[in-house]
Amino acid sequence: MRVRLVSDSHFSAAHRLHREDWDEARNRRVFDKCNNPNGHGHTYGLEVTVEGEIDPETGYLMDFGDLKRTVDDAVIHKVDRRHLNHDVDFLAGINPTAENIAVGIWRQLEGRVAPARLVRITLQETDRNRVVYEGGKA
Amino acid sequence: MRVRLVSDSHFSAAHRLHREDWDEARNRRVFDKCNNPNGHGHTYGLEVTVEGEIDPETGYLMDFGDLKRTVDDAVIHKVDRRHLNHDVDFLAGINPTAENIAVGIWRQLEGRVAPARLVRITLQETDRNRVVYEGGKA
Amino acid sequence: MRVRLVSDSHFSAAHRLHREDWDEARNRRVFDKCNNPNGHGHTYGLEVTVEGEIDPETGYLMDFGDLKRTVDDAVIHKVDRRHLNHDVDFLAGINPTAENIAVGIWRQLEGRVAPARLVRITLQETDRNRVVYEGGKA
Amino acid sequence: MRVRLVSDSHFSAAHRLHREDWDEARNRRVFDKCNNPNGHGHTYGLEVTVEGEIDPETGYLMDFGDLKRTVDDAVIHKVDRRHLNHDVDFLAGINPTAENIAVGIWRQLEGRVAPARLVRITLQETDRNRVVYEGGKA
Amino acid sequence: MRVRLVSDSHFSAAHRLHREDWDEARNRRVFDKCNNPNGHGHTYGLEVTVEGEIDPETGYLMDFGDLKRTVDDAVIHKVDRRHLNHDVDFLAGINPTAENIAVGIWRQLEGRVAPARLVRITLQETDRNRVVYEGGKA
Amino acid sequence: MRVRLVSDSHFSAAHRLHREDWDEARNRRVFDKCNNPNGHGHTYGLEVTVEGEIDPETGYLMDFGDLKRTVDDAVIHKVDRRHLNHDVDFLAGINPTAENIAVGIWRQLEGRVAPARLVRITLQETDRNRVVYEGGKA
Repeated sequence: MRVRLVSDSHFSAAHRLHREDWDEARNRRVFDKCNNPNGHGHTYGLEVTVEGEIDPETGYLMDFGDLKRTVDDAVIHKVDRRHLNHDVDFLAGINPTAENIAVGIWRQLEGRVAPARLVRITLQETDRNRVVYEGGKA
Repeated sequence: MRVRLVSDSHFSAAHRLHREDWDEARNRRVFDKCNNPNGHGHTYGLEVTVEGEIDPETGYLMDFGDLKRTVDDAVIHKVDRRHLNHDVDFLAGINPTAENIAVGIWRQLEGRVAPARLVRITLQETDRNRVVYEGGKA
Repeated sequence: MRVRLVSDSHFSAAHRLHREDWDEARNRRVFDKCNNPNGHGHTYGLEVTVEGEIDPETGYLMDFGDLKRTVDDAVIHKVDRRHLNHDVDFLAGINPTAENIAVGIWRQLEGRVAPARLVRITLQETDRNRVVYEGGKA
Repeated sequence: MRVRLVSDSHFSAAHRLHREDWDEARNRRVFDKCNNPNGHGHTYGLEVTVEGEIDPETGYLMDFGDLKRTVDDAVIHKVDRRHLNHDVDFLAGINPTAENIAVGIWRQLEGRVAPARLVRITLQETDRNRVVYEGGKA
Repeated sequence: MRVRLVSDSHFSAAHRLHREDWDEARNRRVFDKCNNPNGHGHTYGLEVTVEGEIDPETGYLMDFGDLKRTVDDAVIHKVDRRHLNHDVDFLAGINPTAENIAVGIWRQLEGRVAPARLVRITLQETDRNRVVYEGGKA
Repeated sequence: MRVRLVSDSHFSAAHRLHREDWDEARNRRVFDKCNNPNGHGHTYGLEVTVEGEIDPETGYLMDFGDLKRTVDDAVIHKVDRRHLNHDVDFLAGINPTAENIAVGIWRQLEGRVAPARLVRITLQETDRNRVVYEGGKA
């Protein structure tokens, strides 16, 4: 009896799209207003999806409370009210596009959601844009 | 021309996570505040997804109105304003975790949505938690 | 510089609309399916609105975190995963219609949100119905 | 590093479900109130999902702004504030069920979202109904 | 104990902004793409707010079910899947801007929501625009 | 025939709650994690409400498109993808709490929405917190 659980969270963070090894003109051309020197920010919406078998004893895949605590500890407490370019260990040296943040969050959570396994990260950046990452398998 | 239709519904129900064959301490340890002796409840959100071929004559997979009536008759009218541990035939004897409710709803709807076939049940329990069940296939 | 803050919360509770001093037929006629003997439940949405002057020193009416902690302590921790007819001191002896719950929550919060003052409670019961209480003043 | 981007849009359009080659009675029986002779309409929600590899240089699959401009040019500007039976070239001669509109939008966008590829169109017709089309592959 | 109830509904309708007594150029200049000759449409969201005293016997201002039935009978059944310029008696001869539709709905409901009284109509036209009408009092 | 229009927008910005004339300890004690030296950010939701009489000729209070263009020009284009402490002329020297941002936006829009008049600014900061400003009148 395979099932998926989805846990929703939010975090409020600043970021700037920028590459140190590119000159100003190229950064501006590629990243446009998201390259604003002082940065900008988002209230990011994060959906974490895990998959596994229903335990016939409990009727749970896993306790939603445990999943939430894992997401809070491994991700939310590290990114909420922070600057993603400067303050977050698991994003150090990474240009924090929505795509790259989603991959970084996947790596934080992979292997920590037993007895379930991580199958999808959805990161909502604005009211109109989101990224879905499923581990990158072709 | 394969396509999916999704129909959204809500129902308001009480439940209690509890196993009669466990003692009080174990029930409390595993199910925590969801084991509250007098129960609690949710406004559940239900998404039913069906899949099939577009009928070239009508341009429909199936009429959304027919799908809604099927979901209402087979599920909503049986669970809305009810206690899931006591009042629902298709959940009798089942510990009503979100996972188990989703499986029960699947069984109610499977085979009743012709000419489409059921492919996904999504059950939203709180504003932050939901379960997705696709028939349990590995 | 008068301003309002709104803080959103949710709680999951069971209830039954019922009066002990009415016979079964009258309870059923007036409260209909909400009189189901085993009760039912909702994921209630709660909006708490407070009003006051912006402190020119801090730029805050009050800290959103303080407002959230007050709502959590005075309301959410008392009603979440509970049965409103049986488990909640501030609703004891009250028929828990959405209207009466909103009034009860108002009384829990009134006077506890200084330096702001409470001006509105909005209680969402289903995806389609909500109650707004502003202290009952004509 | 495969990833998906989802871009949300809305458009406001009229339509009528109707086949010229059917008589009135059959049109009414099959399409019911959606066959109203003067038509009706919707604020359609459109989710466009594309898939591809993250460019290691930019950290983008593609720029969300480019994706939005493509959707606006190929779809939104052609359907917003229009009548889908009469005003839209890519739906000419098609009975505009949600299913058929989704297929039509797919064909408008397929091949225009490089370096990504189109993988899903979700069309929300009312607050309760939506269609998902993934290219029609079995 | 004064309280307000809010009941949410939706309807799907076509309309065209147009005045017969204006020439084409003026209609186009003022109403722009909303003057499209074949019309367009929306999934309108309707919030009906009523106010009154809580009945100490029932704990209700009024039954949400009764309010819903009144809104369905007086409004939704007359406008859903219709063309607002042609099919709706209470909008006959009225240019169906969101403002005018809201006023028309008010007049349909005023005096029909006893023992409550109507205090606000909110009409959501797109995901970004809505109108609020409170009876037009200065 | 007095009516209100509400126009919804979003902007993505960074900010830091901080007073230059306070020492670090006091800034940290009052503003807590919102004082993070590198700042953080939000996807702010902005609702602008205007009020006035329906023009009997057009059936409009004002064109939603005109209102949107005014909000875009006077506010959104100045704050979107910016740092509110450093990049925004109308917030210069202001500690950008949600309360102060709402007041700043009011001042940008007041007097620019003729023939309507501005009556309310609602600024959503996170999924749970928002501020309502109505010009500060007691």
